Amino acid sequence: MNDVISADSTLPSAAALAALKAIVGSKGWIDEPDRLEPYLTEERGRFRGRCAAVVRPASTAEVAAVVRICAEARIPIVPQGGNTGLVGGAVPAGGIVIAADRLNRIRELDAINRTVTVEAGVILSDLQAAAAAAGALFPLSLAAEGSCRIGGNLATNAGGIQVLRYGNARDLVLGLEVVLTDGRVWDGLTALRKNNTGYDLKQLFLGSEGTLGIITAAVLKLFPQPKVTETALAAVPSVAAAVDLYRRMGDAAGDALTAFELMARLPVEMCLAHIPGVVDPFDAPHPYYVLMKLTSPRPGDPLREAIESVLGEAFEAETVIDAVIASNEAQAAQLWRMRESIPEAQKSEGGSIKNDISVPISRVPEFIDRASAVATAALPGIRVCAFGHIGDGNIHFNLSQPPGADRATFLADWNRIEGLVSAVAHELGGSFSAEHGVGLLKRGSVQKFKSAVEIDLMRRIKRALDPDGIMNPGKVLPPG
Amino acid sequence: MNDVISADSTLPSAAALAALKAIVGSKGWIDEPDRLEPYLTEERGRFRGRCAAVVRPASTAEVAAVVRICAEARIPIVPQGGNTGLVGGAVPAGGIVIAADRLNRIRELDAINRTVTVEAGVILSDLQAAAAAAGALFPLSLAAEGSCRIGGNLATNAGGIQVLRYGNARDLVLGLEVVLTDGRVWDGLTALRKNNTGYDLKQLFLGSEGTLGIITAAVLKLFPQPKVTETALAAVPSVAAAVDLYRRMGDAAGDALTAFELMARLPVEMCLAHIPGVVDPFDAPHPYYVLMKLTSPRPGDPLREAIESVLGEAFEAETVIDAVIASNEAQAAQLWRMRESIPEAQKSEGGSIKNDISVPISRVPEFIDRASAVATAALPGIRVCAFGHIGDGNIHFNLSQPPGADRATFLADWNRIEGLVSAVAHELGGSFSAEHGVGLLKRGSVQKFKSAVEIDLMRRIKRALDPDGIMNPGKVLPPG
Repeated sequence: MNDVISADSTLPSAAALAALKAIVGSKGWIDEPDRLEPYLTEERGRFRGRCAAVVRPASTAEVAAVVRICAEARIPIVPQGGNTGLVGGAVPAGGIVIAADRLNRIRELDAINRTVTVEAGVILSDLQAAAAAAGALFPLSLAAEGSCRIGGNLATNAGGIQVLRYGNARDLVLGLEVVLTDGRVWDGLTALRKNNTGYDLKQLFLGSEGTLGIITAAVLKLFPQPKVTETALAAVPSVAAAVDLYRRMGDAAGDALTAFELMARLPVEMCLAHIPGVVDPFDAPHPYYVLMKLTSPRPGDPLREAIESVLGEAFEAETVIDAVIASNEAQAAQLWRMRESIPEAQKSEGGSIKNDISVPISRVPEFIDRASAVATAALPGIRVCAFGHIGDGNIHFNLSQPPGADRATFLADWNRIEGLVSAVAHELGGSFSAEHGVGLLKRGSVQKFKSAVEIDLMRRIKRALDPDGIMNPGKVLPPG
Repeated sequence: MNDVISADSTLPSAAALAALKAIVGSKGWIDEPDRLEPYLTEERGRFRGRCAAVVRPASTAEVAAVVRICAEARIPIVPQGGNTGLVGGAVPAGGIVIAADRLNRIRELDAINRTVTVEAGVILSDLQAAAAAAGALFPLSLAAEGSCRIGGNLATNAGGIQVLRYGNARDLVLGLEVVLTDGRVWDGLTALRKNNTGYDLKQLFLGSEGTLGIITAAVLKLFPQPKVTETALAAVPSVAAAVDLYRRMGDAAGDALTAFELMARLPVEMCLAHIPGVVDPFDAPHPYYVLMKLTSPRPGDPLREAIESVLGEAFEAETVIDAVIASNEAQAAQLWRMRESIPEAQKSEGGSIKNDISVPISRVPEFIDRASAVATAALPGIRVCAFGHIGDGNIHFNLSQPPGADRATFLADWNRIEGLVSAVAHELGGSFSAEHGVGLLKRGSVQKFKSAVEIDLMRRIKRALDPDGIMNPGKVLPPG
C-alpha cells in the first residue's frame, strides 16, 4: 500500500479544528484513529491516506461554513461519498475529509417532470428504491450501488451496466448545488430539459472528482419503468462477431437495447470453477459470450420476437454459434450472476491487474488482439480476462496472474503492464480510464497520454475555480 | 435595428489585415461592403454589426493561424456558422468575422461506432443526408436546418423538435476540435462513449456561443434509422390535459416518443387563415392541440396500437377530446405543416414578441396561465400565441400585437413584455432562454435572473480561457 504524502504537511491548527467542530457538533465530528480508519483506505488497498478529522455536515449551509474556514486557513479538503472509488480519488493527504453521509435527504420527486432532487449523501440503491416507489426508474446501476453515494457517483461521472441505454451519470443530471472552494454556494438546482443561458457550469463539477467544489445536491432525471425485460446470452466465435451482433441488435432494437456485455471464455470458466450455482447454459465451450438485456416501458412490447429475429439472422451470418433467451426472471438472474461474479471469481485465481479502457466500438476486436499480445509478451503466462460493456466500447481488460506465480510480485508489475495496455488503447483512439476516473492512480497516464494543450486547459480551470488548491489537492491533474 | 457598438473601436491595422489575408488568400477574404452585408445582420433584424473583413479559412490550421494573429494584435473575432441565430450572438462589433463555410468536410463516418466526424461548416441538412446515406440517423432537426451549420449548432447547443428523444446538440457530441483564443488547437476528437480522464473540456465550448474558442470539428453520435413512424394530433381541453397526456404517453412509449408539441387554438387559427393548404382535421374548434410523433427502429413495431391504447385511456379520463392518427406519410406531413407554419402565419398578423422560455413540465399549465395574465395586463388586446416543445417544458410563448395596433410601437415594447414573461418563468424555476441562447439580446436577463455567484463563475471561466477578451466579445456575459 502506498502512503499518500500530503502536499501540505502542516497540520490544521487546534483553533481551526475547534472552529470546524463547532459547526458540525460532536455528531458530525470524527477524530479518533480507529473511527478514522475507514475514511483513510480504499477498496483495492492501493493507497493509505491520513487526515486530522472527518467532518460530517448535515446541511449545505454546514458544508459551506466548513469550507469557508478551510479556505481561510488553507486546510486541504477531500470530499468523500461512499468511498467506493477504485483510483484513490477520495484518499486524504492531510487536512480534513468532508463526508457526505449525513446529507441524505431526498428533497423532492416530481413524477410529471420525471425528476428527483437529492442530496449528495443518498446511497444509490436508496435512490433507485425511491424512484421505484414513485413508479419511475433511476437507471444508474453499478456494483457498489448498495454503499456508494450519489454525490460521489456524480463527481466521478459513474458508468455501470446501463450506460448504453441511459448514458453515464453526467447524462442523468439536470441541475446541481455546489459549495465552491471559497465556501460560497452555487445554486444550480434547475429541473429543466432546455436552458441555454450561458456556460453550463454543472458540467465542470460532474466528473471532476471533487477537485473544483463539493456537490451537495442534484436534480436528476427519472425514466418510465420497464414493463418488459428480455435477457439473452449468445455464444460467439470472436470479438468481431460480438461487435457484428451489437450492430445488428442496435439497428433493430435501438434504445430497447439496455445492456450489451462481452465475456471471454476464461472469466466464464473462472465463474464456473469458483462461484457456487453458476452453470454453463451451453453444451460446449465457446470463445466469447455476449449477455444482453432489452427493455421496454410498453406492456406487451414484442421484444422477444425482435431478439429472435436478430439472433436468427446472426446465426445465418455465422456471427452467433448458440444462444439462450431467459424464459423467466430466475433464468435472467442466473445469467447476470455469471457476469457480475467475474471480479469475485478472479480473486480466487490470484492477483489481477485491472485496466478500465475504452475504444470506439469498431476498434474493440483490434484492441483485444493487440493488448492480449502485448500483455503476454510482457509477462508470459499472464491470463487475459476480458469482459465488460462492449456496447460502450468499454472493456475491463483484467489480467490474472500466471498460475502459481507470486501474487505480490505479479501486482508489483501493475504500472508497467497497465501502461502497455493503455498505450494500445491510446493508439486506437481510446481512453486509459473509461469509467473509474483518474484519482491518484492514473495521474501519470494523464501526463503521458493527454496533450500539453489539454493539460494546460485543465490547469486553467483548476486555477480559476480553486486558486488556492485546497479542494482534493493532488488528484486528477498530473503532479507538478 | 440597433447598431452594435464595438468594445474596441480601433480598426485592425493595415498590416494585420494583410497578414490575415495572406493566410486565407483571396478566396477566403471578403471586405467589400456589399459582400460583407449578409454577415453583419441577423434573421430578425434586431441588430446590425460591422467588421473590417470576413475571413473564411479552409482548414483548422488556417483558423489557428488567423487566431494567432488576432491574439497578438488584439483583434476581436466573431465566429459565425450559418448566421441563423435569433439572439444576435453572431453579430460583429468591429474586428473580423471568421466564417465556417469553407470548413465543410465530413472527415469520417464510422457506421459500427455510430459516429461521424464533421467540420464546423457542414450544413445541418447535408449532415442529416450523409447519415441517411450510410443508413443512420443524425437526429438534430430545426427550422433553419437548410442553412445553419453544425459548428453554430454546437456553439449554441441547438434544440429543435426531437430533443425529447435525442437530447439537445450537446448530448449528441462525443468529441470536439477547438481553436483556442491564443491560436493553439485542442484536439479533443475522441469517439468514445466513456472517457473519465479529467475535466470534460468539450462541455465548456458547447453552448458558450463562441466566447471561449472556435469549434472547428466534432465527433457526433449517430442513431439507427426509424423504421416505423406514427404521427397523431390530439385535441385537448386545457394545457393541464396536454401535460397529463404527455405523462401517459411517456410512461407507455418511453423513448419511442420522439416529439410532443403543444399548439393553442389561436396559432392554429392563424395557420388556417394564412397558410394555403392547412386544414383543421376536426369538426369543431378546441382549446389546445398536441402533435406527437412516435418512432421505432424495429420494423413492424406496433406503435400505432400503443398510441391508440393511450388515447383510449385519455378519452376515458377526459384528457383528450378528439384525436386523429395519420394513416400515411402525406397525412403526417399535413399535420406537421400546421405546426411548422406557425411563425410564418404569425407574421401575417403583425408584430410578434417572442419568448423562448422553459419551465419544469409540471409547471407549464401554471406558466401559461400566469404569463398570459401578465402579458394581457401589460398590454390589453395582446394575443397569446403559445406553442412549442411541451415535452421538454419549452414553450415559444409568442405574443402577437393587438389587431390594428401599430407594429413598430408594439415591437418597441419587446423588452418590457419579455421581461415580464421571463420573470414568470423564473418564479416557476424556469429559464428565459430555453434553446435560442443569450447572444446580445438576453445579456440583461443573465444579469437580472442569474445569481451573482453564477455570473462570477462564468466570468472566471471566460478569463481563464480568453484572458484578453478577443473571442466574440460582448456576448453572453452581462455588460460590465
